[in-house]
Amino acid sequence: MKKLTLKAKPLDMETGRNIVVIHEMDSQEIGHFPGDRVRLITEKKTIVAIANETNKLVKPGELGAFREVTEALSLKSGDLVNVEIAPRPQSVVSIKKKMMGGKLTYEEIGTIIRDVVDGNLSTTEMTAFVVSEFIRGMDLDEIVALTQHMLNTGDRIDFDREHVVDVHSIGGVPGNKYALITVPIVAASGIIVPKTSSRAITSAAGTADVMEVLANVALSIDEIKKIASKVGGVLAWGGAVNLAPADDIIISTERQLGIDPRCQLLASVMSKKLAEGVDSILIDIPTGPGAKVESIEEARSFAHDFIELGHKLGVQVEVAVTYGGQPVGHNVGPALEAKEALETLLGKGPSSLVEKATSLAAIMLELGGAAAAGLGKEMALEILRSGKAYQKMREIIAAQGGDPDIKPEDIPIGDKKEVVVAPYSGYVTQIYNQNVNEIARAAGAPRDKGAGVVLLRKKEGKVDKGEPLFEIYAEHESKLEEALEIARRKFPFKIEGMLLEKITHRPRVV
Amino acid sequence: MKKLTLKAKPLDMETGRNIVVIHEMDSQEIGHFPGDRVRLITEKKTIVAIANETNKLVKPGELGAFREVTEALSLKSGDLVNVEIAPRPQSVVSIKKKMMGGKLTYEEIGTIIRDVVDGNLSTTEMTAFVVSEFIRGMDLDEIVALTQHMLNTGDRIDFDREHVVDVHSIGGVPGNKYALITVPIVAASGIIVPKTSSRAITSAAGTADVMEVLANVALSIDEIKKIASKVGGVLAWGGAVNLAPADDIIISTERQLGIDPRCQLLASVMSKKLAEGVDSILIDIPTGPGAKVESIEEARSFAHDFIELGHKLGVQVEVAVTYGGQPVGHNVGPALEAKEALETLLGKGPSSLVEKATSLAAIMLELGGAAAAGLGKEMALEILRSGKAYQKMREIIAAQGGDPDIKPEDIPIGDKKEVVVAPYSGYVTQIYNQNVNEIARAAGAPRDKGAGVVLLRKKEGKVDKGEPLFEIYAEHESKLEEALEIARRKFPFKIEGMLLEKITHRPRVV
Repeated sequence: MKKLTLKAKPLDMETGRNIVVIHEMDSQEIGHFPGDRVRLITEKKTIVAIANETNKLVKPGELGAFREVTEALSLKSGDLVNVEIAPRPQSVVSIKKKMMGGKLTYEEIGTIIRDVVDGNLSTTEMTAFVVSEFIRGMDLDEIVALTQHMLNTGDRIDFDREHVVDVHSIGGVPGNKYALITVPIVAASGIIVPKTSSRAITSAAGTADVMEVLANVALSIDEIKKIASKVGGVLAWGGAVNLAPADDIIISTERQLGIDPRCQLLASVMSKKLAEGVDSILIDIPTGPGAKVESIEEARSFAHDFIELGHKLGVQVEVAVTYGGQPVGHNVGPALEAKEALETLLGKGPSSLVEKATSLAAIMLELGGAAAAGLGKEMALEILRSGKAYQKMREIIAAQGGDPDIKPEDIPIGDKKEVVVAPYSGYVTQIYNQNVNEIARAAGAPRDKGAGVVLLRKKEGKVDKGEPLFEIYAEHESKLEEALEIARRKFPFKIEGMLLEKITHRPRVV
Repeated sequence: MKKLTLKAKPLDMETGRNIVVIHEMDSQEIGHFPGDRVRLITEKKTIVAIANETNKLVKPGELGAFREVTEALSLKSGDLVNVEIAPRPQSVVSIKKKMMGGKLTYEEIGTIIRDVVDGNLSTTEMTAFVVSEFIRGMDLDEIVALTQHMLNTGDRIDFDREHVVDVHSIGGVPGNKYALITVPIVAASGIIVPKTSSRAITSAAGTADVMEVLANVALSIDEIKKIASKVGGVLAWGGAVNLAPADDIIISTERQLGIDPRCQLLASVMSKKLAEGVDSILIDIPTGPGAKVESIEEARSFAHDFIELGHKLGVQVEVAVTYGGQPVGHNVGPALEAKEALETLLGKGPSSLVEKATSLAAIMLELGGAAAAGLGKEMALEILRSGKAYQKMREIIAAQGGDPDIKPEDIPIGDKKEVVVAPYSGYVTQIYNQNVNEIARAAGAPRDKGAGVVLLRKKEGKVDKGEPLFEIYAEHESKLEEALEIARRKFPFKIEGMLLEKITHRPRVV
């Protein structure tokens, strides 16, 4: 094994993992290729880093060390470091096996996930793993292993009691604020619901963005456990805690490629929920045109995988396939959704939202043993109607540091507003989820909490030319303009005459 | 489209492509995700760059610009730059299509290759392309398109005449110095052989490393054309010229993953050779245990693809399947191979090398019209025996700035030497190519030109315990030690008794 002794040259930049650069002459000397790993040895410590070669940034004899390496080895300029080629980590061999179409063992997946969490894989290797997952897929055994290792490499909550239930929606439908109603309904029955959720990625508002309008969502593991144990429910942001951190890293690569490998999605959801210490999980699969899952067959296949996976992982899983072909309720955007959720808890919610929130709560009440089979829906509606859910939501808001007395009308909505009307008469045959999202995002959501869209009409129903269809709210005039521009280019309503197709019968000339 | 105006902060580091960093608050403001592209607009110019987010390297309101961006936009510290999200380039859509298993069109492949050459793809996207090529493969139409676009995005030589022939070995066998004999034989017949070759990647010596012992190999396009036109033959390093540069970039990603997608290999060889302006190509596929291609079936399948591809590209291709199960000749390492090649040209070569070099030359003589079908071998042997090949090699060496009068014994070989003997008696049933390479590399090859291995025995044949098997040469004592250490751990000879297995028949006890 060839070794070189190089002089450290700290480079003041963070790279997110251990990276060094060496001059291409030194690189050739030790038989190194770009992206190979090197072992860096000082008197006190040895670490492995990914090395790139350069002919400008350092001179021959120098080791350019980015901040992570400088800190790990406590390097000062001119310190001597022994450098030698390190073997490829075992996980790279396993990634290649998956690339070749092989089935990975429990241990192999464990090694990959450990290296993902430790930042030991180069961008090239991470990408090869994600693309191979996407193309080759994984079978149930592999997904179980993936889930368990993602779970084991992060923090976990343990509630020391039964009847801990959570719900997760795989997303893709705008205005999906059901959790702010479902969680307090279920928590009001005595079941613990330690819900963590994400911020918006490509949508106008994630559950965490909506809840943040009412209370603090950046809670620690201890706070989540304390609040859920005391109040029954919590609505926290998953990004503030270290539950299944491998998943967050993998998702960042997926997003850059615009892919979402099914095996990773399954393991992602299950590991995040298991880390919350639940004993049963409800999965909501919004299904319909423009949702993440478009057909009922695909939804059923997904549901089957989730249930099988739960079975293997020793956790009870139920799946609800809900209608996701248009936004849930009317409001889209953090503050607008928080407002609509509070109104719903106060008995003035739109039927689609009440229906979705109570249907999901019903299943959770039965899963958690609060309601007998078949009686969950009645109980959920009763908890909502009686005001107990609203009362529970006040407790949750207070526990998370918000104002429990807040009224829907107190919630500040953007003061720049535009109403868009029907350009012609006809029937609303489709509302395009993606376009609604884009308009709300252009208006400033989710960053501008008060920005968003209110749908005055939903799918199915006649509209007259000039009748208001939707409102856009923004906090800044320029963003209102941008949103209007998007609304013109990507109109969110499809309006058609009753006569969808005209077939003319021409009498045959004999 | 959200826009930000940021102040340039030049970062003095080259990254190989257009990369900027922006603060995560600004990143969120324009709705950017790590790895997305941004359009950078100044008064004079607009470019697209890949943007990463940071919370340390720049402050909010600043645009961290690495050297490529700073230079492209002539940025000075504090210059104002408008930044907006740029759409994903079309090639990213096409890469996803290949990931999904689709067939790419001629235009789609063209867009990808253009973006590869222009540095427009992120590491993640480049990797997704290479992994998808590896897993999904490409059909003949796609490989034709890949070859043509790799060819068209680089420089080309045009000889304005017919009978330009080259040979390419797909490699994997140590001591493969045949080209230094084959090229002068063919050139001596009046055919033009503008051979470019690579330096060693994982082997002990590439053809370019061997030729460099005798002459200058870093020639320009013009020099290659001039020398080949005047002398008939040239032996240049491909890395010094810009022939099919996309290939060099793609190969770097392949190497990091240890994969070699067949479609890419086919397109790589064909584009490099077509760029040399040849009208026919001989492909050598060394086949046998420890070679790149191990079975004759695989070699035939490869040969079929090369011939089909040549047909589609309008160039004549012949394929020679040669024995690659042990090193060619005896010497491995730049100077040792140059010495053996010169000895062979002077009529004192080992039979395996003479046989390989003249067999390949025979096919090229027939391809180039110098010999009638079936008479190439006789002609090749005659040119070698008569000394005409040696004379031509002297001309080539002189044209490339070397000393034409050099004798084999003038070539400096490392003066540190060790002889390794047979540890026991038996038959040489295998020589491990990979181990021979590793020993030669540990001894210092290819960087130390005089380092390498001389095989005193080859496969098949009885050896007695204590009989010399191979010599190791090095320029430095420490490297000789390293090479000996490797030789002990990875012994390159398999020596077995004649009795390969002993089966004992036990009489049954009745």
